[in-house]
Amino acid sequence: MPISSPPPAFRFPVRVYWEDTDAGGVVFYANYLKFFERARTEWLRGLGFEQEILRIREGVMFIVSETAVRYLRPARLDDLLQVSVTIREARQASLQLAQQCWRSDPDGETLLAEGTIRIGCVDSGTFRPRRIPISLLEALA
Amino acid sequence: MPISSPPPAFRFPVRVYWEDTDAGGVVFYANYLKFFERARTEWLRGLGFEQEILRIREGVMFIVSETAVRYLRPARLDDLLQVSVTIREARQASLQLAQQCWRSDPDGETLLAEGTIRIGCVDSGTFRPRRIPISLLEALA
Amino acid sequence: MPISSPPPAFRFPVRVYWEDTDAGGVVFYANYLKFFERARTEWLRGLGFEQEILRIREGVMFIVSETAVRYLRPARLDDLLQVSVTIREARQASLQLAQQCWRSDPDGETLLAEGTIRIGCVDSGTFRPRRIPISLLEALA
Amino acid sequence: MPISSPPPAFRFPVRVYWEDTDAGGVVFYANYLKFFERARTEWLRGLGFEQEILRIREGVMFIVSETAVRYLRPARLDDLLQVSVTIREARQASLQLAQQCWRSDPDGETLLAEGTIRIGCVDSGTFRPRRIPISLLEALA
Repeated sequence: MPISSPPPAFRFPVRVYWEDTDAGGVVFYANYLKFFERARTEWLRGLGFEQEILRIREGVMFIVSETAVRYLRPARLDDLLQVSVTIREARQASLQLAQQCWRSDPDGETLLAEGTIRIGCVDSGTFRPRRIPISLLEALA
Repeated sequence: MPISSPPPAFRFPVRVYWEDTDAGGVVFYANYLKFFERARTEWLRGLGFEQEILRIREGVMFIVSETAVRYLRPARLDDLLQVSVTIREARQASLQLAQQCWRSDPDGETLLAEGTIRIGCVDSGTFRPRRIPISLLEALA
Repeated sequence: MPISSPPPAFRFPVRVYWEDTDAGGVVFYANYLKFFERARTEWLRGLGFEQEILRIREGVMFIVSETAVRYLRPARLDDLLQVSVTIREARQASLQLAQQCWRSDPDGETLLAEGTIRIGCVDSGTFRPRRIPISLLEALA
Repeated sequence: MPISSPPPAFRFPVRVYWEDTDAGGVVFYANYLKFFERARTEWLRGLGFEQEILRIREGVMFIVSETAVRYLRPARLDDLLQVSVTIREARQASLQLAQQCWRSDPDGETLLAEGTIRIGCVDSGTFRPRRIPISLLEALA
């Protein structure tokens, strides 16, 4: 059942606005990828890493190479969601993250969508794979 | 000059994510309409009015009927913006709002975009004009 | 190697505009889900099924329940892409589709992204699973 | 009345997909700016000017500096729209364009949205104003 307790993880709040919805009256499924990315960005920022600064100082950026998402329950306008980030796997040039999107309801929290996202570290000029900066890998460990 | 003090008004913070940018390296201009709308939604919520509840209880919704925006300076990834809302005109079935988008910079605040938005109150079933609920007009006064 | 021949399948052209790109100078990965959906919609339309008419006449709509996408090569502004649709599996209330996004290059076609999408047929009022209309299943067979 | 004949002008077809709609069941107003831009891009392409080639060869790009749009009638899922482009004013470093979005209905064409868009020609590196390439101005005349 999707109503249960979310795991301890980084969580970021996302409010649903008109821009996020579609004519079905619910959040357009592709937008969960945006919500997941906002959460990953804030999770990195919380660890002390801003992507724009990583690009300028280290010449690296993260690109998304794989996404797998299951859409379980609909979110609607004005809903306040919580998006989590958990590391599944950290390699030298890529990370695999598990992410979930929850909504607080009167009778508990409801899991709306969940997925795994693989991001690769690349040279911001050539787009070729690069090692994730050591300082970041250490912060993730 | 766009560097000066923003007016006292409702202000809502908006962070720039990858989803907001385009290949020019800056925020895609159409997305300022989304930022403006998030701020209007939170401004209404702050006054005690949730749009989804207005639709269900009062059978009315707000639709945007006119937008006029000037794009002055670019915003970039990771920028933290402040979006303001000020009432220009309140009629029985429509509101005209002035909105601005600012960024805090080391030497002051920079105005990035500004515009006026007209929203009309309509019946959520027929889309015909309806009076703005009295309680909302009173809250705006 | 991603340069090879795409499979015989329904194909729909998609042009890349500013709205589709991000500050990395390439198509924002989440937008491939939009491209895939446009192709699915035109594929259904080509079979004689408009979703808005299905909703009104049959009271059913299709919702996306799972997406899995691998992003292989970047697409850029002005690129002309071809998005394919192939049926993987047809059940009574859901379809699994394989989709690919290709670009014609001087030396052949390049596969940019590929994925599988599961769509479920639901009642447009209750969002509960419904059988796919027989006429559509027959057209797919 | 918005039902009348559209002016002779460049016209580009735009189909409405799920991604374009919102929970009101209609096209999200900000998306008309995207539709307008697709039409401008194809209008320039029809004149022989691809924006990506202009950027690489001439070092210039066009940025949108002002948009003013009136939203008159809603468009819905599956609607096929026609978006027009007409030059209002051509200056050395900017153009003002009038754009309209029409839908073909059984009893004629319906004007859904119209606006004026100002685009400026800028250096693609510094974002400073640059003269519009002579060849383009000649093609527009």
